[in-house]
Amino acid sequence: MELSALLTSAGINTAICTILLSLYSILRKQPSNVSVYFGRRLASGRYRQKDPFSLERFVPSPSWILKAWETTEEELLTIGGLDAVAFLRIIVFSIRIFSISAVVCCFIVLPVNYYGKMIHHQHIPRESLEAFTILNVPEGSKWLWCHCLALYIITCAACILLYLEYKSIAKMRLDHIDGSPPKPSHFTVLVRAIPWNPDESYSDSVEKFFTDYHASGYLSHQMVQRSGTVQKLMSDAEKMCRIFKAATGEHSCRQGLMRCGFCGGPPNSFKILSSEPDSVRGKSLGDLDLARRKECAAAFVFFKTRYAAVVASQVLQSSNPMSWVTDMAPDPHDVYWSNLWIPYGQLWIRKIATLMAAIAFMLVFLIPVTVVQGLTQLEQLQQTFPFLRGILKKKYFSQLVTGYLPSVILILAFYAVPPTMMLFSAAEGCISRSGRKKSACCKVLYFTIWNVFFVNVFTGSVIRQLRVFSSVKDIPAQLANAIPLQTSFFMTYVLSSGWASLSCEVMQLFPLLCNVIKKWILRIKDDSPEGTMSFPYHTEMPRVLLFGFLGFTCSILVPLMLPFLLVYFVLAYFVYRNQILNVYVSKYESGGQFWPIVHNTTIFSLVFMQVIALGVFGLRKSPVASGFTIPLFIGTLLFYEYCRQRFLPIFRNHAAEILIKMDRRDEQSGKMEEIYQQLRSAYTHTETCNDSRRSEISNHHEKADSIPDPEHVKPGKKLGQIIGIGSWAVHHSLE
Amino acid sequence: MELSALLTSAGINTAICTILLSLYSILRKQPSNVSVYFGRRLASGRYRQKDPFSLERFVPSPSWILKAWETTEEELLTIGGLDAVAFLRIIVFSIRIFSISAVVCCFIVLPVNYYGKMIHHQHIPRESLEAFTILNVPEGSKWLWCHCLALYIITCAACILLYLEYKSIAKMRLDHIDGSPPKPSHFTVLVRAIPWNPDESYSDSVEKFFTDYHASGYLSHQMVQRSGTVQKLMSDAEKMCRIFKAATGEHSCRQGLMRCGFCGGPPNSFKILSSEPDSVRGKSLGDLDLARRKECAAAFVFFKTRYAAVVASQVLQSSNPMSWVTDMAPDPHDVYWSNLWIPYGQLWIRKIATLMAAIAFMLVFLIPVTVVQGLTQLEQLQQTFPFLRGILKKKYFSQLVTGYLPSVILILAFYAVPPTMMLFSAAEGCISRSGRKKSACCKVLYFTIWNVFFVNVFTGSVIRQLRVFSSVKDIPAQLANAIPLQTSFFMTYVLSSGWASLSCEVMQLFPLLCNVIKKWILRIKDDSPEGTMSFPYHTEMPRVLLFGFLGFTCSILVPLMLPFLLVYFVLAYFVYRNQILNVYVSKYESGGQFWPIVHNTTIFSLVFMQVIALGVFGLRKSPVASGFTIPLFIGTLLFYEYCRQRFLPIFRNHAAEILIKMDRRDEQSGKMEEIYQQLRSAYTHTETCNDSRRSEISNHHEKADSIPDPEHVKPGKKLGQIIGIGSWAVHHSLE
Repeated sequence: MELSALLTSAGINTAICTILLSLYSILRKQPSNVSVYFGRRLASGRYRQKDPFSLERFVPSPSWILKAWETTEEELLTIGGLDAVAFLRIIVFSIRIFSISAVVCCFIVLPVNYYGKMIHHQHIPRESLEAFTILNVPEGSKWLWCHCLALYIITCAACILLYLEYKSIAKMRLDHIDGSPPKPSHFTVLVRAIPWNPDESYSDSVEKFFTDYHASGYLSHQMVQRSGTVQKLMSDAEKMCRIFKAATGEHSCRQGLMRCGFCGGPPNSFKILSSEPDSVRGKSLGDLDLARRKECAAAFVFFKTRYAAVVASQVLQSSNPMSWVTDMAPDPHDVYWSNLWIPYGQLWIRKIATLMAAIAFMLVFLIPVTVVQGLTQLEQLQQTFPFLRGILKKKYFSQLVTGYLPSVILILAFYAVPPTMMLFSAAEGCISRSGRKKSACCKVLYFTIWNVFFVNVFTGSVIRQLRVFSSVKDIPAQLANAIPLQTSFFMTYVLSSGWASLSCEVMQLFPLLCNVIKKWILRIKDDSPEGTMSFPYHTEMPRVLLFGFLGFTCSILVPLMLPFLLVYFVLAYFVYRNQILNVYVSKYESGGQFWPIVHNTTIFSLVFMQVIALGVFGLRKSPVASGFTIPLFIGTLLFYEYCRQRFLPIFRNHAAEILIKMDRRDEQSGKMEEIYQQLRSAYTHTETCNDSRRSEISNHHEKADSIPDPEHVKPGKKLGQIIGIGSWAVHHSLE
Repeated sequence: MELSALLTSAGINTAICTILLSLYSILRKQPSNVSVYFGRRLASGRYRQKDPFSLERFVPSPSWILKAWETTEEELLTIGGLDAVAFLRIIVFSIRIFSISAVVCCFIVLPVNYYGKMIHHQHIPRESLEAFTILNVPEGSKWLWCHCLALYIITCAACILLYLEYKSIAKMRLDHIDGSPPKPSHFTVLVRAIPWNPDESYSDSVEKFFTDYHASGYLSHQMVQRSGTVQKLMSDAEKMCRIFKAATGEHSCRQGLMRCGFCGGPPNSFKILSSEPDSVRGKSLGDLDLARRKECAAAFVFFKTRYAAVVASQVLQSSNPMSWVTDMAPDPHDVYWSNLWIPYGQLWIRKIATLMAAIAFMLVFLIPVTVVQGLTQLEQLQQTFPFLRGILKKKYFSQLVTGYLPSVILILAFYAVPPTMMLFSAAEGCISRSGRKKSACCKVLYFTIWNVFFVNVFTGSVIRQLRVFSSVKDIPAQLANAIPLQTSFFMTYVLSSGWASLSCEVMQLFPLLCNVIKKWILRIKDDSPEGTMSFPYHTEMPRVLLFGFLGFTCSILVPLMLPFLLVYFVLAYFVYRNQILNVYVSKYESGGQFWPIVHNTTIFSLVFMQVIALGVFGLRKSPVASGFTIPLFIGTLLFYEYCRQRFLPIFRNHAAEILIKMDRRDEQSGKMEEIYQQLRSAYTHTETCNDSRRSEISNHHEKADSIPDPEHVKPGKKLGQIIGIGSWAVHHSLE
C-alpha cells in the first residue's frame, strides 16, 4: 500500500465521519427522534420539548460536543454510574498513553525507520508505507537503541498511568460502596445448592440452617421460585385481559419511570403483588398458585447487617463444599432470574461446555475473515475471479477495495459476535446481568483480539495459524516478521472500523431505522422508547481495548499508525460521553468490576509489545537491545503481580471495615427497621411478561412523580438511590 | 539391555535388600541402637528395656513386618497423625492400582507386544528388553485396541480409586477437626501487615482495630516480637549459667517428654517463663527486656469462639488488601517463628524470587545427571576414557555398570535436593512448618519428575531438552518414541533407587553412624535421642509419587516394569508403617493437606499416560485407537475439575458448620473459660536455644509423667491431645 492510498482512505473516512456527525447534529434536534437520541433523558422524565419550528433545527452544530466536554466526572458518575466512569477512564488513559507514544515514536522511531537503508525511497506520495516501518531498518543497525529507548519510555509511562488509574478507580469503588444509601444487595446473600431433605421443604431447610448457624445475623429469607406451565398459561390469560381493558379505554399508555426493556428484568415487579388484579388472584387462586409454583434449591437470605451478610457469603458454610453455596446477592435489578434455578452441581460443567463452545465459535468464524483477507490481496482475487480484472484495473476502485472494503466486511461479520457471546454467557449460569455482561465482555475481547489481530497477522487456514503456536521459541520472530507486513490492513482497520464505528454508534442506525418505520410507516405517535438500552459494555469495551492493543503492538513497528489512533480515541471520548449523557440508561451496574479486565488486557498488550520487540531485535541481530528488553519484560510482570495483590481483592470482595462503618451509621440514625421492611419486598420475581409489567407501572406513574430526577440529585450520597434501589424508593414513596 | 542383565540387577538388588533388612532386624534388637530405631517410643516414654543377653538378639526375624502389618489405621492415626495416614494411603492406592495395571498389562498388553513382528526373537535369557515393549508392535497393527482397552481400564480404575481416597481422606480430615480437643490454633488468627501509626504502638493498633470491628469475638492478642542482638547475648549468658549449674550436679540429664530437635521449634517454651530463672530475670530485667525486644507488624489475635476466628481469617478486613492481612494461625508447635517478622509486602516478591531460584536450580542440576547418562552408554564411556576399555570388556562388570551404577550416582546427587528446597521454602516466607514442608514437597516433586523423567527421556544438553517443548504438537510423538528406548534405565531405577532407598530408610544409616560414633568413640552413654525427626514428607512423598508416575507412564509401553514396581510398593508399605510406628515423632501436622498434591500428581500422571498413548497410536498409525483416547482424556480432565470443586475447599478452609458445633459443645460443657486461660500462654516464643530448652523440660519431666502414652490412648476424641496440643496439656497438668 502506498502513502497516497492511505491518504485516500483517510480522506474517505474523514468525509464520512464529518457527514455522519453533522447529520447526527441535525437529526438529534428533530422532535420525532427524541426517543432515539435522548432515551435516558426521556426515561428520567427530564426531557423538555423545544420549539418545534426554528431554522436552528436544520443547521448542523457542534453543541453536543461542547456539552460532552463540559460535563464533569461527578455528573457522569451520577448519571451513568461507576461502570460508565470506568469505561471513560479507559479512553482517557488511552489518549494519554498514545499521546506520549506518538510523540516518542514520531520523533525518535520514525526518522530512524525512514532513513534506514533497506527500501529504495520514491517520491513521497508514492512512497510505500513499508518505508516508514521497521522493515526499513537494516540488520545490525546501531540505531536500534532508539527503538529500545522508545519501548522503555512507553512501558514506564503505561505502568505509571495504569497504577494511578487502578488506584483511583479502586478508591472510587470504595467511595461508591461507602457513599451509597442502603442497598438491598448488601444485606442479602444468595444461597444455592440447598440440600434436599424429604422431610421438609427447601424453605424450612434454609430457615433451620440459618437460624441454627447464623442466628445473630439472620433476618428472613425468600425462596427462588420456578413457575411451571400452568403459571405461564395463567399469566397469558391475564395479559389478554389487560389488552382487552386497554382497548376499551381504561388504560392510558405512557412511559414509566423505570422500564424493563429487552433485558427481561422486573425491577418493580413487587408492585404487581400489591396492585388490585393480583390481590384478587391471590385470594381466589392463592393455594393453587403455591402448589403450582415450584421451589428451587436457591434462596435469597436477608441479614440484619451488611457485615453478617458478607461473612455468610465469604465463609465456607458446609463440610460439603457443593452444598449451601453462598454468594453476595446482586442488586434486585441486576438479578438474572432465569439462571437462579440452575442446579449448582451443573455450573462447573456448564462453564467448561460454554468455554469449549466459545473456542469452537472463534475458530469457525475464520471463514468470513479469510474471505476478507482475500480481498486485500488483489492479485489473488484477480486470479480467482478473472472477470473482475477489468474493474480492478481502475486505480480508484482498486484503492477503494484494498483500503476500505475488507474492514467493512469484517465489521459487518462482527455484529453477530456479541449476541452470540451473550448467549454463551447466559448459558454459563451467571446470577447477575452485570456478571453476564462482564463474562461476555471477556469472551468478545479474546475473540476480537484473536480474530482481528492474530488471524490477520498469520493469514491462512486454521491449521496453518495454529501451527504458528506449535513452536514456542519462534513466535517472537514470526510476529516481528508478520506484523509490519500487515501494516496497511491495520491502518485501514483503525480508519474504517474505528472511525466509522464511532459515527455509527452516535447515529444509532438501527434504533433510528426502527423509529422511522414506527413514526412514518406504522404512524404510531407514542414517544415511549421501546427498549432504552443499558450501555453495551460487552461490545464497546472490547473494541476500545482492541485499538489499545493495536496501538501498543504497532507503536514501535509502525509509528505512522499512532496519529490516526489518537484521533479515534479523541473522537471516542466525545461520542461515548454524549451517549452516556443522552442515550443509555444504567439499569444495573457492577461497580467498576470491568476495570481488572482493562488492566489485564493492557498489561498483556505491553508484554506482547515487548515480545515482538524481542523478535525484532533478534531478527535485526542486536543483542544489546534484546538484552535490555528482558529486564523490562520481567519488570512489567512484577508490576502486574503487585497490582494483582494490591487492588484485585477490592474488586472481588467487600471489605469488612467499610461495611461495619455503614452498618453503624444506619444503626445510629435508626434507619435499620425501615431497611428491613424494604428488604422483604426487594427481591420479588413474577413470571408475568414485560408488557403487563410496563402497563402496571405506568398506572402508578403519576404517583411516582415525586422521585427526583437523577441529574438534579447531588452526586455521592444520593447516588445509589437512583441506580441501585430505584424501584425500592418508588415502593417506599407509594406507601 | 538384555533380559539377563535385568535379572542380574534384580538379583543384586534382592540380595542387598534381604541382607539389609536382616541386618536391620538384628540391629534393632541391640539396646545401644534404641535411640536410632525407637526414637518415637523413647520420646513417648514407652520403650521397655528387654533382657540384654539372649540368643534371640542375634538372629534375624521378621517380627517388625508382622507388627507393621497388624497395626490398624486407627492406631496409626493416633500415633502418626492424619498426615502419616494420608501418606500410607498413597502407598495403598498405588498397590491397588498397580495390581490392576499389572494384571491387565501382563495378560493383555505384554503378549501383544511380545508377539509383535518388529524385533527378531532370541533365546529368552538373551532376549532384548525391547522385545517386551511397544517398540515391537508394527505400524498399523490391529492389536493396538488392546493397548487402548488397557488404557481405559487403568484410567477408570484409577479415577474410581482416587475418588474414593479423596472422599475418605476429606472425611477423615473433617472428623479429625471435629473430634480434636480444643486447639489454640482454632481460636487464633495471625494478623500481618498491621499499618504503622506513629501515635501508637502496633499492639495498641491491633487492640483498637479488633475491639472496633470484631468486638463480639475478640478476646486478646499477642504481638510477635523480634529479638535483637542484646537479647541474643542475654540468652547466651543464661545458657552458660545453666551449663555451669549442670556441671555442679544440680542437673539430671534425662530425655524429656516433648523434645524440640532439629526443627528449632519451641513447643514448651512458655515453661521457661514460669520456671525460676526466668521469673528472676523477669523481675530484674523486665523493663529493659521489653525495651530491647522489638515489636513486629504481626500479631496473634485470640477470639472467643472458633467461628469468630474463622470469620476474621476469611473476610477481607481492610479497604487496602495489603494491610490487616489475616490467616488462621498454625498450631503453636507448627509456627515457623523466624518468618513471622517478614514484612507482608515482601512476601509476593519473595515467592517469585524463590520460584525463579528453584527453577534455576532445577536446570543447573542437570550436570550430574548427564554424567549419569554417560555411564549408561558404555560405548561412549569407552571412547572418552580409553583406559577403561579393558575393565569394561568383562561381562559381569559391564552389566554392573549399566544396571546399577548410574542409579546409585543419581541417588547420591539427589540427597542434596530436599535440604535445598527446604531452604527455598523457608525463604519464601511460610508461616508454618507444615506449610514449609508442603511447599518443599511440591518443589522436590517437580524437581524429581523433571530431573529423573524428562531429562532421562530427552538426553542431551539443557538447550536440547528445552527444545523438545518448543514444538507443542510433536511432544506426544517424541515422548512415545523416547520412553521405550529408556526402558532399561527406568527398570534399573526402580530396582536400585526404589528398593535400595527403602532399605536405607529402614536402616537409618546416618543416625546409625552418628550413634556408633557417639557410643563407641565418644563413649557417651546417654540414650536421649539427639534429634528425633518428624517424618520427612518432603523427601518420601515425591519419591513415592515419582514411582507412581513412572508406573503410569510405562504401564502400556513397558509392562514388564509393573511387577518390580509392585514389589517396591509392598515393601514400602511395611517399611513406612514400621518407621511411623517406631522412629518418627509427629511434632506438627497439616491435617492431610498433602493429599491434594497427591491427587493432582496422579491426575497429571494419568493425563500424561494418555498423551503418550496418543503419540504411540499416532506413530503406529492407528486412528481408531487415537480417536478412542481423546474422550478418555477429556473425561479425566472433567473428573479432575469435579474433584477440585467437590473436595479442595475442605482442605483450604474450615467449614463454619463444624466449628460452630464444636463451639457449642465446649460452651455447653463449660470448657471455654479454661480454654481462654490456656490461649494466653499458647503462643509464646523465646529466643533461647534448643539446649537450654531441653534441659528445662527435663527438669519438669517427673511431674509430667501423668501424661498418657499416645499408644494407650483411644483414637478419636483424645487424638489431638497428644498431637496438637501436647505442650498445652503438659502446661495444664503442671498448674
